[in-house]
Amino acid sequence: MGRTVRDLLERRFGTAEGVHEDLGNGVVELLLDHRTVRTFLPEPVDERVLRLIVAAAQSASTSANFQFTSVVSVRDAARRDRLATYAGDQQLVRDAGAFLVWVADWSRSVSIARAHDLPAQGADYLDSTVSSIVDVALAAQNAAVAAESLGYGITFVGALRNRVDEVCAELELPAWTFPLFGLAIGVPAPDDPADVKPRLGQDVVLHQETYTRPDPAAIADYRERIGRYYTEQEKPADWVLDRLAWRIADKGGLDGRHTIRDSFHRQGFPLR
Amino acid sequence: MGRTVRDLLERRFGTAEGVHEDLGNGVVELLLDHRTVRTFLPEPVDERVLRLIVAAAQSASTSANFQFTSVVSVRDAARRDRLATYAGDQQLVRDAGAFLVWVADWSRSVSIARAHDLPAQGADYLDSTVSSIVDVALAAQNAAVAAESLGYGITFVGALRNRVDEVCAELELPAWTFPLFGLAIGVPAPDDPADVKPRLGQDVVLHQETYTRPDPAAIADYRERIGRYYTEQEKPADWVLDRLAWRIADKGGLDGRHTIRDSFHRQGFPLR
Repeated sequence: MGRTVRDLLERRFGTAEGVHEDLGNGVVELLLDHRTVRTFLPEPVDERVLRLIVAAAQSASTSANFQFTSVVSVRDAARRDRLATYAGDQQLVRDAGAFLVWVADWSRSVSIARAHDLPAQGADYLDSTVSSIVDVALAAQNAAVAAESLGYGITFVGALRNRVDEVCAELELPAWTFPLFGLAIGVPAPDDPADVKPRLGQDVVLHQETYTRPDPAAIADYRERIGRYYTEQEKPADWVLDRLAWRIADKGGLDGRHTIRDSFHRQGFPLR
Repeated sequence: MGRTVRDLLERRFGTAEGVHEDLGNGVVELLLDHRTVRTFLPEPVDERVLRLIVAAAQSASTSANFQFTSVVSVRDAARRDRLATYAGDQQLVRDAGAFLVWVADWSRSVSIARAHDLPAQGADYLDSTVSSIVDVALAAQNAAVAAESLGYGITFVGALRNRVDEVCAELELPAWTFPLFGLAIGVPAPDDPADVKPRLGQDVVLHQETYTRPDPAAIADYRERIGRYYTEQEKPADWVLDRLAWRIADKGGLDGRHTIRDSFHRQGFPLR
């Protein structure tokens, strides 16, 4: 901490050029200073604090005020242990002070419609599922930001989808609900090495008027910057050949998630 | 503005009970105080400020550091006008100080893999598309929060998917990219009626250990609270019978988005 907006921009992008760094405020600094924490002290997050974090999540924008988000808070140690196992045996799922599973929830809306004898066929379409995924992620990011503002560290756990059918069973998720990812929240261990991770240059990500393919020099620059970061973290790696290559190659890189379409169908989402 | 955390919680949920409102800080207050602005003054957002907002977006968590987000900033008035028309003729798309289209971008990763003669079949699976949608929404919410912290108002524009093929053509989006939603950012018009909108009670959304169906009394309570809000906003409506019913009934409520699966396929996403 204690870095200025300029420091943070340079750390993220290698340069602060072209960015209005004088306008930084506490909120922008917090957002730029995000890092993913992977080791937590075993201190639970108080329920009343968790509810403040979820209140922030519920305050995010939501498609047509549908409020597609459900959150399952798991405290039970045995259940945490099973979720950790499903999610690639990640110890942080066991240790975090709070563990929230973020669920795309059409069940509530479909049930309300049916209770009023209203048709609910609009829910069948892929677009409806996309709307709910966007809703949930907007809410979850607010939760992450709120948690970090309160001094906690966070990490998202997408690997919860590796064995998503088991997660559905474990959380007793009914038809028309789907667990998208976990969010671990807790007090970072003092020796956690998390730091601000470099990102692709802004000109790669931000397009003017129409989409433009990235300058190969900008990709090469990023590969060098992120390579230095991996070395700093004592896990030297090449971003392309060690990281991207493995994950993108084939279904093996998906760790079981290649069957997720079937799981959506089993949970009642036709994805028409 | 000027509301305390307790005021904001009461406005959102009808009660602040069970929530640790003393821990509120500037960030939590900002998140709780979110409202969707629908009328903007015609004042452009400075490019250097926009880049600060996008820097905050890029700082959000991203699945396996893939950075699936691309953002297209549209300033050209004629292009804005066409996008506004595609998105249900929303004037705010024309007027906002900045208009960003948020794109799920697998193109970058697939291109890098191919340039290194690496296979890229992992991208074909629905789970990969889901990962990218989550990534983009996490980033976009950070942008929204950063913009609000700088005094701007925002609104998400999901209706950009109503005519998504035209949006793809307009922004020259290549294969393996898909536009998910717009984000309008700008100076709220002084007479914009936006206010903190009530949300479902926390016990409806936050589940303990396993999923539980909502208490009908909690749904009835929400219907009453949001009904009062609609009346305050001079648009009296019943949440179930006027809002939810229309949107959920059938493909008509999707305003053209019922064919989005075909559009994903056309953009090269197999969704296997």
